[in-house]
Order: sequence, then structure tokens, then C-alpha cells
Amino acid sequence: MEHQKELDKIIQTVQERDIENIYLVACGGSMAALAPMEYYFDRELAIPCKVYTSNEFNYRSPLALGQKSLVITRSHSGTTPETVRACEKAREAGALTIAMSMLGDSPLAEAGELCLTYDYSKTEKVDLYEGDSALAYRLLLSLLRCLKPESEKFTRALEQLKGIESIIEKNREKFRDEADSFGKALKRESIIYTMSSGPFYPEMYAWTSCLMMEMQWVHSNAIHSGEYFHGPFEITDYDVPFLLVRGNAATRFLDDRAIRFAQKYSEKLYVIDADNFIYEDIDEDLKEIFALIICGKILRDYAEALADHRGHPTSVRRYMWRMEY
Amino acid sequence: MEHQKELDKIIQTVQERDIENIYLVACGGSMAALAPMEYYFDRELAIPCKVYTSNEFNYRSPLALGQKSLVITRSHSGTTPETVRACEKAREAGALTIAMSMLGDSPLAEAGELCLTYDYSKTEKVDLYEGDSALAYRLLLSLLRCLKPESEKFTRALEQLKGIESIIEKNREKFRDEADSFGKALKRESIIYTMSSGPFYPEMYAWTSCLMMEMQWVHSNAIHSGEYFHGPFEITDYDVPFLLVRGNAATRFLDDRAIRFAQKYSEKLYVIDADNFIYEDIDEDLKEIFALIICGKILRDYAEALADHRGHPTSVRRYMWRMEY
Repeated sequence: MEHQKELDKIIQTVQERDIENIYLVACGGSMAALAPMEYYFDRELAIPCKVYTSNEFNYRSPLALGQKSLVITRSHSGTTPETVRACEKAREAGALTIAMSMLGDSPLAEAGELCLTYDYSKTEKVDLYEGDSALAYRLLLSLLRCLKPESEKFTRALEQLKGIESIIEKNREKFRDEADSFGKALKRESIIYTMSSGPFYPEMYAWTSCLMMEMQWVHSNAIHSGEYFHGPFEITDYDVPFLLVRGNAATRFLDDRAIRFAQKYSEKLYVIDADNFIYEDIDEDLKEIFALIICGKILRDYAEALADHRGHPTSVRRYMWRMEY
Repeated sequence: MEHQKELDKIIQTVQERDIENIYLVACGGSMAALAPMEYYFDRELAIPCKVYTSNEFNYRSPLALGQKSLVITRSHSGTTPETVRACEKAREAGALTIAMSMLGDSPLAEAGELCLTYDYSKTEKVDLYEGDSALAYRLLLSLLRCLKPESEKFTRALEQLKGIESIIEKNREKFRDEADSFGKALKRESIIYTMSSGPFYPEMYAWTSCLMMEMQWVHSNAIHSGEYFHGPFEITDYDVPFLLVRGNAATRFLDDRAIRFAQKYSEKLYVIDADNFIYEDIDEDLKEIFALIICGKILRDYAEALADHRGHPTSVRRYMWRMEY
């Protein structure tokens, strides 16, 4: 309930302000977690929205940043220095700032005019409706409902999101064996490419940067399914592995085209297909929002299965948190 | 002179129109060649600007696309089907469309309301002031001068750009040995990472996607210098090669931070430093525009040197242009 109160306060404040542009500012996995919002704002609103990695925002701030800006920042721990700085900088410029973090008393939460927290625990079970992914989409949908009140879709989506817990559990169960097969098959690989497009692309960017490169020391590159044909596809070979998420958003054709090509020339193409997800009685036009949350969880399971087969836990780091950098 | 006439016509038309947003739409290396414009528009104008790979633009068009949009498309041959389609789509939506291509009678040039061509030849010498890079920056600077007439900087930059030919030649000469050493040292590598930030990042994206993956079949990933610390840096090891461009724009600190870290843990960090370029009597505040053009040419020479040492010419393809895809 405390998260809903934070959301309500955010929406109340946004309603009082005149928003002319939206900036999404964070680093790495947190930036990727905000990035699907850009796709939806771009599709649903005439208000421009752009994603920045925090230090780009800090060192080469956009000229349009000001009192009519909405700046959403995010850091899991709420301590990422450049994201805290970005939030301060935006607030100094008069922007309305929202800080998303697991802790309400983190430096980031304190830097923001408004904060949005979520439940997170490494040891205890968390209600996924109050977890990080669902709250990011609750924020997105609440903002869209507020900024585009003529559409009823966002209200429906917010209502149906309440059933996310059981949907996620059923999908994770359904894909458990596939995740394990993936981990076993690719355990000797030193490089695994990823691909997707549209709002699913940031999921692959996060999986590449955080799950593969950071947590597995496996070389990777998140190739955009549309860009694949303009250079990267030349590295395709029978023994080059790809993990591709086939989304169910407007860009699905891009993924299908990449699948058609890659399956001809690579014997190691793995596809997670949003059409194979379990949606229960979710409305057809809301499935892509659910697919984004489901695919994030399944991707995590794929990485954990790979980690297990490789004997390299996803908690291992050689530099991160172990030194100054 | 014909290119200057095309530019003049573009600026005259832009002056007659009310531009509320700018979209840069292309694929692969052509998208990367347009992308630095986003950085400069973002810094100099309050008009929002965003880059799209063509099929994202086609399949999930932004809601704000309309009669007050300026859409710049680019394709070297002018035949890239999804870019031609993007240009048509933008024009159908009433946007002002500019098509950039080497040929004035290409499908792309014909799809655009206005076109901008440049001189290009594989066999004959081309005056670099009339070549693809210089014309992209002449377009950028002319648009900035038109949309921000109170600044005198863009006029100065356009004037000084006339000396680009001799500056490029001197820099290529200066870096010839370094390029060769790079090619010799890395000829056995199957993966080479790249890094940069700000307006220099797209240069690395193009080098990674087109020069390494496409033309050398070398695995790669263009890591953003700021994002490096949020995941990717964990793949750094004594034997992992990186090519980093240290830019001289506002994001230089991001590159410096990445250099400090990577040089500690990789024995194969190669840096192309914009501070080491020859600028002759170019004004201090214009050096970054020149650095972007210079670095593109030097990066090409680095790739050609690598190709030479590997005996794998940059003209070789196994899929591109050889089949339907």
C-alpha cells in the first residue's frame, strides 16, 4: 500500500504541473528497466521522451531541461553516484524529479522531489505486484492515464496487473526445462549474442551487459533485430550462439526477419517467444505489457541456469563493489 | 557546388516551415553517421530530436510525427528498402523530408522532398569537403545556423570546414604507423571491444557493426564509456582488447574514467585520443566537430590495417548483397 500512496502522490503532482518533455535517467540495468517507457511515451503521447545514461545527462545536459521537464531516475540501491547527481541536477534545473529505488531513505530517494519504492528481498518471498518490474509498469501506466485521460486502456492494464504474481509463476514453471537446456547447451561458450527490438530490446541490453558480461564474464552484444542486417549478421555462423526474444509488440516483424535469417546460418539460435507465454485471461491488447515483465523473469532464469551449469554464480564479481573505480 | 545548392534549398525550405521535432532515420553505418546530429541538436536547440533505425520508425512510428516534423534519412546507395519506406512514410505524414545519399537519382533521393548528395568514388580522388562526412556536418551546421541564428559559431564552423581536406590528410599520415601497429598486434584476436561516449559513441557503433562484425567477422560490442562501469567492465581481463576513442566533447570525463580503469586490467587497450589530432588553425571551440570527422577516417585506417594483417579484405561478405534476406 505504501507504494500505491507514493504513486498517487506522483500522479497528483504531475497533474499540477505542465510537462513538456520527459527524461529517463539511470545506468546499466536500471536504465534498461526505464527504457521501455520511452517506447510507450513515444507511441502514446506527443510529449518527447528520451533515455540517458546518467553521466551523459550530467556532462552534456539537454538544453530543453527545465521547469517543464519530468525526470525519472532509477537505481536499485539508490546509491549510484552519477544517478544521484543527475537527479540533483534535474531538480536544480526546476524539473519534477521522480527517484525510483528499493529504499525510501537512499541518497537517490532523498535527492528526488518524489520517490517510488518497491519491495525487494534476496531471502524472503516478495509479492510481485509490489516488486520492481510491476511498479515500473504501474508508474508508466499511471502516467499514461494521467497524461492521456481519453484512453481507457491504461486503467484496464492497471487493474489486470494485480494478477501478475500467478502469471509470472506459471510462466517460470513452463520455461524451467527450456532454461536448463539452454544453460547446458551453451555452458562452454565464451560469447553469446542477444537480439530483440522495440520495448523488448532494453531487456536484451540488460541481459547482455548485466547477466552475461557482468555476472558470467561471457562476451556479448545486444544486437537490435533491425540493425542485424546492416552489419552484425555477417558474424553469424553455424557455431555462433544467439538468444533472441521474439516480442509481441509492433516491432515483431523485425524479430521474425532476424529469426528467419539466423536459423538458416546458426545452429545455436535460441528463441524466447512471447506468443508462447501464459497470459490467462489478460486482454489481447495488454499482452505486450505482461510479456515484457514475464520475459524479464524468464531471462533471469535462463542466466541462472547457465550460471549453474558453468559453476559461476551470478553473485560473483571481480571489480564491481570490490574497489574504487 | 551542386551540393551547396542542395543545402541552400534545404535551408530555404526549413526557414519556411515550422519545425517542432526532428527525426534521424537510417540503418547501420548510415544511422551512426546521422547520430552525432542528435547530440548537437540536443545541446543547442529546445527542439526534440531522436534517432531511429528505419524499421523501428516504420513499425512503431512516433505519435508526434506530422507536418511539423523534419525527418532526415540517409543511405549510401539510396536503396536500403526500409529507409526508402521510412522516408515515404514521413512524407505521407506531411513531414519535411531530407534524403541523404551519394546519388541524386536513387530511390531514397526520389522519395524525399529534398535531397542532399555527396561525392563518392572508390577509384578516384574526392575533395573531402564535398565528401559524405563533411556534407553531413555542413547539413548539421547549416540547420543549426538557421534554427539558432543568434549564435555566430556555426557560420565560423562552416567557413573553417573548407580546410578539412588538408587536415584529414595530415592526420591520416600522423596515425599511419599507429594503425599498422594496432593491426599487427590484434590480428589474431577473435573479439575486439570498442568504447566511447557523447557524439563519438556512434563512430564506435559503426566501427563495431560495420568494420569489425560485417567486414572482418570479428566479434565486437560498442560499449558506452559511461555504461562500462555498470556491467560490461567485468569482462575486462589482461588479454581482452579494447579500442577506445577519447573524444574532446563535453563527455570526455566519461572516456577518461574508462581509460583509467581499462588500462589497469587490460594489456590490450588502444586509445585514439582527439587531443593528439592535428587541427592547424581551427578555433578551439570548433575542434570537436573536426575531431569527429578526423576520427572517422582514422578508424577506417585502423580497420584497413587490421584487414591487411589478417588477409581478410574489408570488401569480403558472405551474406550481404549475396542473397535475399
